[in-house]
Amino acid sequence: MNLEAQWIVGFVDGEGCFHVGIARHPDMTTGWQVLPELVVVQHQRDVKVLQALKRYFRCGVVRRNHGERMCWRVRRLEHLSGIIIPFFERHPLKTLKRQDFLAFRKVVLMMARGEHLSAEGLERIRRIAERMNRRTGKVKSCPP
Amino acid sequence: MNLEAQWIVGFVDGEGCFHVGIARHPDMTTGWQVLPELVVVQHQRDVKVLQALKRYFRCGVVRRNHGERMCWRVRRLEHLSGIIIPFFERHPLKTLKRQDFLAFRKVVLMMARGEHLSAEGLERIRRIAERMNRRTGKVKSCPP
Repeated sequence: MNLEAQWIVGFVDGEGCFHVGIARHPDMTTGWQVLPELVVVQHQRDVKVLQALKRYFRCGVVRRNHGERMCWRVRRLEHLSGIIIPFFERHPLKTLKRQDFLAFRKVVLMMARGEHLSAEGLERIRRIAERMNRRTGKVKSCPP
Repeated sequence: MNLEAQWIVGFVDGEGCFHVGIARHPDMTTGWQVLPELVVVQHQRDVKVLQALKRYFRCGVVRRNHGERMCWRVRRLEHLSGIIIPFFERHPLKTLKRQDFLAFRKVVLMMARGEHLSAEGLERIRRIAERMNRRTGKVKSCPP
């Protein structure tokens, strides 16, 4: 299955989720870990589409979400900043999910500069993440 | 907002629903009316995307689905057979929703030949519709 950039944009406009998780983590200086991720969830019958996304971007993992649902998920910071973000800058989303993407990009760029390691930076990220989740009303996350 | 064909395919792969409704209708010879429709539902904040779909295809209506959700819906047989079906023949869906589309196309072509007006044809359509709805597990329909 060969994907085209615009198909991917349309599919992610529909099914994708740019999510910023913030979880307790005693090993971190701030006590919290910031986990940005792009997740696309599909019923397992369409796992081929998720595998095609993984092949196209050459990053992320395809794994079970829960029940009969699978997901393709990208979490590695260098893959988000070096592959995923440039792609959606070149090929803008058309729904208001674009606003989630822009907030997501802000968080990833802050993390690339290490800003999430200070209490102040973490607080800024937390506010951005809260606004994102309020807008979408739901969070589709994959288990760790 | 300008849409590209592949974006539409990706978006419909994610959010579209090819549905064949069969409803009691005392005025019809068979007592039943067959209602094929393509529906795309979005939160009202993304109504612009639905309007862009309507402009692109020059058919269908944008209206409230329920609550905060809006839909773009195409029901007219000549629009389905003359615009929607040729589009998705030229630009195939990539998920298994393609199988729904193929079943949907079969029903629309049968209707264009008037086969839904006989008890035999209606029964064939009913079996096709049942298989479609079993596969998708859910039906996203717009109110009439």
